Amino acid sequence: MGTLQHFIKQTLTIMDEQFNTHIDGLNVPSRLKQSMLYSLEAGGKRIRPLLLLATYQAFDSELEKVFSTATALELIHTYSLIHDDLPAMDDDDYRRGKLTNHKAFDEATAILAGDALLTHSFYLVTNDNHLTDKEKVKIISLLSETSGPKGMVAGQILDIDAENKTINVDQLEKIHVLKTGELIKFAVKAGAILGGATEGQIKDLELFAYHLGLLFQIQDDILDVIGEDEKLGKAAGSDEDQNKSTYPKLLGLENAIALRNKHALTAKELLNRTEANTALLEEIVDYFNQRDH
Amino acid sequence: MGTLQHFIKQTLTIMDEQFNTHIDGLNVPSRLKQSMLYSLEAGGKRIRPLLLLATYQAFDSELEKVFSTATALELIHTYSLIHDDLPAMDDDDYRRGKLTNHKAFDEATAILAGDALLTHSFYLVTNDNHLTDKEKVKIISLLSETSGPKGMVAGQILDIDAENKTINVDQLEKIHVLKTGELIKFAVKAGAILGGATEGQIKDLELFAYHLGLLFQIQDDILDVIGEDEKLGKAAGSDEDQNKSTYPKLLGLENAIALRNKHALTAKELLNRTEANTALLEEIVDYFNQRDH
Repeated sequence: MGTLQHFIKQTLTIMDEQFNTHIDGLNVPSRLKQSMLYSLEAGGKRIRPLLLLATYQAFDSELEKVFSTATALELIHTYSLIHDDLPAMDDDDYRRGKLTNHKAFDEATAILAGDALLTHSFYLVTNDNHLTDKEKVKIISLLSETSGPKGMVAGQILDIDAENKTINVDQLEKIHVLKTGELIKFAVKAGAILGGATEGQIKDLELFAYHLGLLFQIQDDILDVIGEDEKLGKAAGSDEDQNKSTYPKLLGLENAIALRNKHALTAKELLNRTEANTALLEEIVDYFNQRDH
Repeated sequence: MGTLQHFIKQTLTIMDEQFNTHIDGLNVPSRLKQSMLYSLEAGGKRIRPLLLLATYQAFDSELEKVFSTATALELIHTYSLIHDDLPAMDDDDYRRGKLTNHKAFDEATAILAGDALLTHSFYLVTNDNHLTDKEKVKIISLLSETSGPKGMVAGQILDIDAENKTINVDQLEKIHVLKTGELIKFAVKAGAILGGATEGQIKDLELFAYHLGLLFQIQDDILDVIGEDEKLGKAAGSDEDQNKSTYPKLLGLENAIALRNKHALTAKELLNRTEANTALLEEIVDYFNQRDH
């Protein structure tokens, strides 16, 4: 098994343990907890925690230091999926081959489970003994900025506005940079900050995250055209059904693939420039670029 | 104009200024900002910020120190109202005589405006230069705990579960202690902590907040029976229409009034015990106890 495969498995195990400790152990009404755990355990790939851990270990090997930050990040990602799937938003009945939260429970519970996951993510960071107060404040500031009205939530509003409209590639990029890119930026920046990276390295890695986020999204769009239903856990071509703008639709499939590869190249160049121990992050670029689900 | 009336007016002005600076100044998609501001400016009584400021000034006079914490608290209270009003939750069309957020905008926007307000509240605290890192961490820990799955969100889940069911007074109290009491506890505790209160004083004030929260809620239920439509901004008797359990319904009106007065007395005794400058907080007890809307 390669280094990345091993690291991915390790990340999945860490996340499961964290959810056991920090969510399953919560003394809260049972339906609320079940609903929170249902979506946390719905088979996510833990890409954001993976990125955070991989960036951190480019600078430091004491991984425990970033466990709660990685968990907070996955909580926020999960809350955003629950709210995105609601009838008033994307109205999805399935995600990753399982019923969405509001279908497995009900709408009110899904809204509240999302609210609870979002709120609890900040509690986790403030109560982590591995971090100094200064680090906690930095992380919470970055997490609330990237996931809030200037970040992910802005992306979600723009995404809804863009439905059934013709938008250009610049507008599409802006939506993705906000909607998925901001949390990817958080993952990389938080890993670098807590790992003790220099200002210059943090800047390079922030730019790396920008290109990585876009290549991830373009590949997502590509998979929606060419992927197989079974591997995706949703119907391939579902973006087209919903009249969503995608890179293949705006650029054509070949140009979309070329753009994706260009982002991968730039991402690797930026990693190289940091002169940190970024072998794992390079593998992640290839992994994102070639994934089939 | 009495001291409390003056302080209430001052609090309203401070909150307006804070929203101007921290929300109106945000560089975010226009509909999102409008939706956030719509509910923030919908004529709330700012009771939680008022309590926070009044508790703080029992110990210290440099009010600027708690502005962003008071603002964060009002943001979280406002998000909770927006989400509570949604069709999947209480399904209310009006609040304080104005259309609810999802009626003035749409459901998706209302969900996202709530998410944005919640997330941004933590950003405000981390970026306030009046607080030390240690204070920021304490405040965020307390705010995320009282508003999260162990606090306000738990209360909301229990409240939904209790609809159309017969519950007893203990169960009703538990719902209120979580749903409204936790944020009142935060207001008082945060004011005391940032004001430099001793451990003993903080403990007394936390208990004070418990009694104050209950008297506030009982009076709310009483007003729903005897209040006039116009002053309430909603139809009096609306709780009864919705088959909600209330104190007057479970205890009878006279016993509910007696219980409310008992909480007021205990609250004042606890204030007295702190030996702090609590004249304003005492006035607030009377204000809550006698309010007619």
